[in-house]
Amino acid sequence: MPIQHSKYFDEKVQSLASERHGAKFSIGIISAGTYHFGTGAAERMTVVSGMLTAKLDGSDEWVNYPAGTNFEIPANSGFDVKASTDTAYQCQYL
Amino acid sequence: MPIQHSKYFDEKVQSLASERHGAKFSIGIISAGTYHFGTGAAERMTVVSGMLTAKLDGSDEWVNYPAGTNFEIPANSGFDVKASTDTAYQCQYL
Repeated sequence: MPIQHSKYFDEKVQSLASERHGAKFSIGIISAGTYHFGTGAAERMTVVSGMLTAKLDGSDEWVNYPAGTNFEIPANSGFDVKASTDTAYQCQYL
Repeated sequence: MPIQHSKYFDEKVQSLASERHGAKFSIGIISAGTYHFGTGAAERMTVVSGMLTAKLDGSDEWVNYPAGTNFEIPANSGFDVKASTDTAYQCQYL
Protein backbone atom coordinates (compact mmCIF):
# COMPACT_ATOMS: atom_id res chain seq x y z
CA MET A 1 0.00 0.00 0.00
CA PRO A 2 1.42 3.44 -0.89
CA ILE A 3 2.27 5.66 2.07
CA GLN A 4 -0.55 8.14 2.65
CA HIS A 5 0.16 11.65 3.89
CA SER A 6 -2.62 13.44 5.80
CA LYS A 7 -2.80 16.97 7.24
CA TYR A 8 -5.14 18.22 9.96
CA PHE A 9 -5.72 21.46 11.86
CA ASP A 10 -3.99 23.86 9.44
CA GLU A 11 -1.16 21.32 8.96
CA LYS A 12 -0.32 21.44 12.69
CA VAL A 13 -0.97 17.70 12.88
CA GLN A 14 0.34 15.51 10.06
CA SER A 15 0.54 11.78 9.64
CA LEU A 16 1.95 9.10 7.35
CA ALA A 17 -0.02 5.87 7.10
CA SER A 18 0.77 2.40 5.80
CA GLU A 19 0.17 -1.21 6.78
CA ARG A 20 2.22 -4.16 7.94
CA HIS A 21 1.00 -7.75 8.03
CA GLY A 22 -2.44 -6.46 7.04
CA ALA A 23 -2.68 -4.10 10.02
CA LYS A 24 -2.92 -0.37 9.31
CA PHE A 25 -0.70 2.01 11.28
CA SER A 26 0.32 5.63 11.10
CA ILE A 27 2.98 7.83 12.58
CA GLY A 28 2.79 11.56 12.90
CA ILE A 29 3.70 14.79 14.60
CA ILE A 30 1.35 16.82 16.79
CA SER A 31 2.55 20.44 16.98
CA ALA A 32 2.24 22.25 20.29
CA GLY A 33 -1.47 22.93 20.86
CA THR A 34 -4.77 21.32 21.82
CA TYR A 35 -6.89 19.25 19.45
CA HIS A 36 -9.85 16.89 19.35
CA PHE A 37 -9.82 13.73 17.27
CA GLY A 38 -12.64 11.34 16.55
CA THR A 39 -12.13 7.61 16.04
CA GLY A 40 -13.66 5.15 13.61
CA ALA A 41 -11.88 1.96 14.57
CA ALA A 42 -10.46 1.70 18.07
CA GLU A 43 -6.90 3.03 18.23
CA ARG A 44 -3.77 2.70 20.33
CA MET A 45 -1.72 5.94 20.45
CA THR A 46 1.94 5.47 21.45
CA VAL A 47 4.07 8.51 22.24
CA VAL A 48 7.42 8.14 20.41
CA SER A 49 9.07 11.35 21.68
CA GLY A 50 7.77 14.38 23.55
CA MET A 51 4.60 14.02 25.63
CA LEU A 52 0.85 14.03 25.11
CA THR A 53 -1.83 14.85 27.64
CA ALA A 54 -5.15 13.30 26.69
CA LYS A 55 -8.75 13.15 27.87
CA LEU A 56 -11.04 10.53 26.41
CA ASP A 57 -14.55 11.55 25.39
CA GLY A 58 -16.86 10.97 28.34
CA SER A 59 -14.03 11.38 30.86
CA ASP A 60 -13.12 14.47 32.91
CA GLU A 61 -9.56 13.37 33.55
CA TRP A 62 -6.52 14.66 31.69
CA VAL A 63 -3.72 12.06 31.78
CA ASN A 64 -0.04 12.61 30.90
CA TYR A 65 1.50 10.13 28.47
CA PRO A 66 5.29 10.52 28.33
CA ALA A 67 7.40 9.05 25.54
CA GLY A 68 7.22 5.26 25.54
CA THR A 69 3.69 5.04 26.95
CA ASN A 70 0.40 4.58 25.12
CA PHE A 71 -3.34 4.93 25.51
CA GLU A 72 -6.26 3.34 23.73
CA ILE A 73 -9.40 5.00 22.42
CA PRO A 74 -12.64 3.10 21.82
CA ALA A 75 -14.18 2.85 18.36
CA ASN A 76 -16.62 5.57 17.31
CA SER A 77 -15.45 7.83 20.08
CA GLY A 78 -12.75 10.47 20.41
CA PHE A 79 -10.30 12.29 22.61
CA ASP A 80 -8.89 15.71 23.41
CA VAL A 81 -5.12 15.88 23.24
CA LYS A 82 -2.61 18.56 24.25
CA ALA A 83 1.05 18.80 23.31
CA SER A 84 3.27 21.40 24.97
CA THR A 85 6.07 20.73 22.46
CA ASP A 86 6.00 19.08 19.05
CA THR A 87 5.45 15.41 19.77
CA ALA A 88 5.92 12.28 17.65
CA TYR A 89 3.40 9.46 17.91
CA GLN A 90 2.49 6.12 16.40
CA CYS A 91 -1.16 5.11 15.96
CA GLN A 92 -2.19 1.48 15.59
CA TYR A 93 -5.71 0.49 14.66
CA LEU A 94 -7.10 -2.22 16.90
CA MET B 1 8.57 25.40 13.01
CA PRO B 2 5.95 24.10 10.55
CA ILE B 3 5.97 20.35 10.02
CA GLN B 4 7.89 19.51 6.84
CA HIS B 5 6.83 16.60 4.64
CA SER B 6 9.52 14.98 2.46
CA LYS B 7 9.30 12.17 -0.09
CA TYR B 8 12.14 10.01 -1.37
CA PHE B 9 12.57 7.05 -3.73
CA ASP B 10 9.28 7.40 -5.66
CA GLU B 11 7.43 8.17 -2.40
CA LYS B 12 8.45 4.78 -0.94
CA VAL B 13 10.18 6.60 1.92
CA GLN B 14 8.42 9.58 3.46
CA SER B 15 9.15 11.67 6.52
CA LEU B 16 7.69 14.44 8.67
CA ALA B 17 10.17 16.76 10.35
CA SER B 18 9.94 19.26 13.18
CA GLU B 19 11.97 20.34 16.18
CA ARG B 20 11.67 20.19 19.95
CA HIS B 21 13.77 22.18 22.38
CA GLY B 22 15.80 23.39 19.43
CA ALA B 23 16.69 19.87 18.28
CA LYS B 24 15.45 18.76 14.87
CA PHE B 25 13.82 15.34 14.54
CA SER B 26 11.83 13.46 11.95
CA ILE B 27 9.65 10.41 11.82
CA GLY B 28 8.86 8.41 8.76
CA ILE B 29 7.94 5.20 7.04
CA ILE B 30 10.33 3.10 4.94
CA SER B 31 8.36 0.87 2.57
CA ALA B 32 9.62 -2.65 1.95
CA GLY B 33 12.77 -2.35 -0.16
CA THR B 34 16.46 -1.41 -0.07
CA TYR B 35 17.72 2.16 -0.08
CA HIS B 36 20.84 4.24 0.46
CA PHE B 37 20.78 7.47 2.46
CA GLY B 38 23.49 10.05 2.89
CA THR B 39 23.93 12.08 6.06
CA GLY B 40 24.81 15.71 6.62
CA ALA B 41 24.69 15.93 10.40
CA ALA B 42 25.23 12.72 12.35
CA GLU B 43 21.92 10.90 12.97
CA ARG B 44 20.39 8.39 15.35
CA MET B 45 17.79 6.17 13.68
CA THR B 46 15.34 4.49 16.07
CA VAL B 47 13.03 1.76 14.80
CA VAL B 48 9.50 2.46 16.08
CA SER B 49 7.77 -0.61 14.59
CA GLY B 50 8.82 -3.21 12.05
CA MET B 51 12.54 -3.84 11.53
CA LEU B 52 15.42 -2.32 9.60
CA THR B 53 18.60 -4.01 8.46
CA ALA B 54 21.39 -1.51 7.92
CA LYS B 55 24.98 -1.37 6.73
CA LEU B 56 27.00 1.77 7.37
CA ASP B 57 29.14 3.16 4.57
CA GLY B 58 32.60 1.67 4.89
CA SER B 59 31.31 -1.45 6.65
CA ASP B 60 30.58 -4.89 5.16
CA GLU B 61 28.24 -5.95 7.93
CA TRP B 62 24.45 -5.90 7.71
CA VAL B 63 22.93 -5.56 11.19
CA ASN B 64 19.29 -6.16 12.18
CA TYR B 65 17.60 -3.41 14.18
CA PRO B 66 14.26 -4.62 15.58
CA ALA B 67 11.62 -2.21 16.92
CA GLY B 68 12.90 -0.37 19.97
CA THR B 69 16.55 -0.39 18.94
CA ASN B 70 18.58 2.31 17.24
CA PHE B 71 21.78 2.92 15.34
CA GLU B 72 23.87 6.01 14.72
CA ILE B 73 25.38 7.23 11.48
CA PRO B 74 28.37 9.58 11.36
CA ALA B 75 28.12 13.02 9.77
CA ASN B 76 28.88 13.32 6.04
CA SER B 77 28.54 9.59 5.57
CA GLY B 78 25.65 7.27 4.76
CA PHE B 79 24.08 3.86 5.08
CA ASP B 80 22.27 1.16 3.15
CA VAL B 81 19.00 0.11 4.72
CA LYS B 82 16.59 -2.75 3.99
CA ALA B 83 13.01 -3.15 5.19
CA SER B 84 11.19 -6.43 4.60
CA THR B 85 7.88 -4.86 5.67
CA ASP B 86 6.83 -1.22 5.94
CA THR B 87 8.70 0.11 8.95
CA ALA B 88 8.24 3.22 11.09
CA TYR B 89 11.30 5.08 12.37
CA GLN B 90 12.33 8.20 14.20
CA CYS B 91 15.48 10.10 13.22
CA GLN B 92 17.23 12.46 15.62
CA TYR B 93 20.03 14.72 14.51
CA LEU B 94 23.03 14.59 16.82
